[in-house]
Amino acid sequence: MGEFELIARYFKRPPGPRSQVGPNGQDTSDGRAVALGIGDDCALLAPAEGMQLAVTTDMLVEGRHFLSTVAPARLAHKALAVNLSDLAACGAEPLAFTLALALPRPDESFLAPFAAGLFALAEAQGVELIGGDTTAGPLNICITAFGQVPRGQALLRSGACAGDDLWVSGTLGDARLALEVFRGELALAAADFEQVREAMERPQPRVTLGRALRGLATAAIDLSDGLVGDLGHVLAASNVGAVIDADALPRSTVLARQAPALQRQCVLAGGDDYELLFTAPAAQRTAIEAAARLVGVPVTRFGHIDAAAGLHIVDAAGRALEASWRGFDHFAT
Amino acid sequence: MGEFELIARYFKRPPGPRSQVGPNGQDTSDGRAVALGIGDDCALLAPAEGMQLAVTTDMLVEGRHFLSTVAPARLAHKALAVNLSDLAACGAEPLAFTLALALPRPDESFLAPFAAGLFALAEAQGVELIGGDTTAGPLNICITAFGQVPRGQALLRSGACAGDDLWVSGTLGDARLALEVFRGELALAAADFEQVREAMERPQPRVTLGRALRGLATAAIDLSDGLVGDLGHVLAASNVGAVIDADALPRSTVLARQAPALQRQCVLAGGDDYELLFTAPAAQRTAIEAAARLVGVPVTRFGHIDAAAGLHIVDAAGRALEASWRGFDHFAT
Repeated sequence: MGEFELIARYFKRPPGPRSQVGPNGQDTSDGRAVALGIGDDCALLAPAEGMQLAVTTDMLVEGRHFLSTVAPARLAHKALAVNLSDLAACGAEPLAFTLALALPRPDESFLAPFAAGLFALAEAQGVELIGGDTTAGPLNICITAFGQVPRGQALLRSGACAGDDLWVSGTLGDARLALEVFRGELALAAADFEQVREAMERPQPRVTLGRALRGLATAAIDLSDGLVGDLGHVLAASNVGAVIDADALPRSTVLARQAPALQRQCVLAGGDDYELLFTAPAAQRTAIEAAARLVGVPVTRFGHIDAAAGLHIVDAAGRALEASWRGFDHFAT
Repeated sequence: MGEFELIARYFKRPPGPRSQVGPNGQDTSDGRAVALGIGDDCALLAPAEGMQLAVTTDMLVEGRHFLSTVAPARLAHKALAVNLSDLAACGAEPLAFTLALALPRPDESFLAPFAAGLFALAEAQGVELIGGDTTAGPLNICITAFGQVPRGQALLRSGACAGDDLWVSGTLGDARLALEVFRGELALAAADFEQVREAMERPQPRVTLGRALRGLATAAIDLSDGLVGDLGHVLAASNVGAVIDADALPRSTVLARQAPALQRQCVLAGGDDYELLFTAPAAQRTAIEAAARLVGVPVTRFGHIDAAAGLHIVDAAGRALEASWRGFDHFAT
C-alpha cells in the first residue's frame, strides 16, 4: 500500500457538515467554516464574520506521550483530544484539524483502528480532517487543530487578577496513577486500573466548558504538564501569585484511596490531566457553577490569586506544603 | 536545558510586523493577521476581510526527506520552504506557521543554526512563528503554515481545462541529481555539486509567482514528488489528460550536461523540485510571461491539457516515450 492509497483508504471522508464544496472544489460561499478540505495543496478555512481562528499543535512521540502498548484507537483519540483541549482552554469552538503521521510501515492492523478512533472523536466533536501528511518513519503523530472564537473573547493565560478564585474542572491525577501502575510502582484492582487507564488513554477535552466560560473566566489553561507547572504559566503570564489548597484539589474515588503522599504527587504534578484550570472574580461563582452544571462538567474552587508573586501550597488546615512540585518537562531526565 | 527554556531561547521572538498585541495579550483589532502569537494555549489568526485562510502541513523525517549530513540551518530552511511552496501553489500570501519539533537531545549545536535558518527564511517571506511544540524523540520536524487568499480565488488542482497550456517554473531535476551524487551513483565537479546540492537543500518557494498567477492560471500544484506523479494529481482532480514534451522541460546547465536518460529521470520523476506546475488558457500566454518577468521567476511551456484521460510523454521530435515514470511515494520500497 502506497502513501496516496493509504490516505484514500483511511483518512479521506466525504465532506462533513462544516464543509460546502462546489462541483469544481470551490467554496460555495454559504458561510461554512471549511471551504476546502483534504486533497489539494492547501485546505481553505473561512471563520465566520467577527471570529478569530484559534490554532494549536501537539506532537506525540512513543515513550514520551504514550506507551507502545496503547491501542491505536486510543492513541488517535488522545492525539486529537489534547489539541481540542487547547482549543477548549481558549474558549474556542473546534472546527477542523490536520494530521501529520510518521509510521514505520503502512500497517492495516494499526491504521484501521487508528482511523476509527480518530474519526469517532472528530465526529463527536464536529471537527473535520482537512489535510495532512503521511510518511515512513519512527511513529510520530502531529495534529494541528483549528477553532473559532469571537474577536477579543479568547480566554488567555494572561488575564488573572489579584483576588480571583482558582477553579479546576473534573478530577486530577488519575492519568498519573495509571502511569505509576504501568511503571510497576503500584498495583491496583482490575476495575480501578481500567478507570485510571481510561483517564490516561482517553482524555475528554472540556470543549463545552471552555466555551461556557467565555465572559466569566479571566484566564484559563489546559492541564497537560501537571497543575503546579501549568498554574505557573498562568501566574507568570498574568504577573501575579497564588495560594492553593492541595487537599481541595478534586480526585477520583480510586485516587482518594491511595497513600496521601501519592495523592498529592498525582494531583499537583501528575500530568496528562487535560482538565481546565481557570480564574474568575468571586462575583462570578454562581454563574460559573450554573454554567458547569449546564454542560455537565464538575468544577471545584481550590485557591485564589494573590497580587504578590509566588505560589503558596497549603493543606486543608492551612499548613504550608513544600512547593517544589515541578511540571512535566519533555527534556528533563 | 528544559523544554520551556529551549523555546524561550531559540524560538520566541518579539512579535513581528503581522502582529499587534495589546498590553494584556489581546488583539488590538487593527487588522493585523496575527492577533496572538507564541506563548498561550492557542495562537489567534485573523485573516483580512474577504480572505480565506489557506492551511498546509508537512512532516520531515531523517532518511526520507533529508540526509543526516544536512546542515541544521538548511534543514530548517527546507522544512519551512516546502510548506510555503504549498501556499504558493494555492496563490496564497503567507502569514504564519507553527513548528512541532522532536529531537533526541536539546543540543545547542543543532538548535542555534536550526533557529537561524528558520528565522532567516521566515523573515525574508514575512511569516511569523506563532506556536508549536517541542519534545524528545527521533528527529522529526512538522510545520503547519498559514496564508490568506481572496475568497474563491485560490488556485486548485481541479481547474485544468482541455486546451490549456502546461507551464512550469524554474528548472527541474537538480535536487534529484544531488541525491544521486549522495547515493554514490554519480560524481560531479565540486562547483556543479554545490549548485545542485543548493537546489536540494535550500529550495526557494515560488510565493510571488503563485500570487501573480491568481486570475491567470486555471490549476496549480507544487512539485514535490516528481513532475509525472504531481501532474497526475492535477489530471485526476480535473478529470482530463495531457500531452507533454519531455525535452521541453527546463533544466540547469549542470543537468543538461548529464546523460540523456539521467536527465529524463531527473526532470520527469526527480522529486523535491518545489517549482510550480500550472495550467492556463493559451490566451493568457502574454500575461503569464509578463507576470513571471515581473516577479523574476522564469516559466516554461511544456505541453497541453487534453479532454481524453491519460498522460502522453513525447520527445522534441514528437516520438512517444515510455510513460511509466512514477512519482515519489514515501511508503514505496
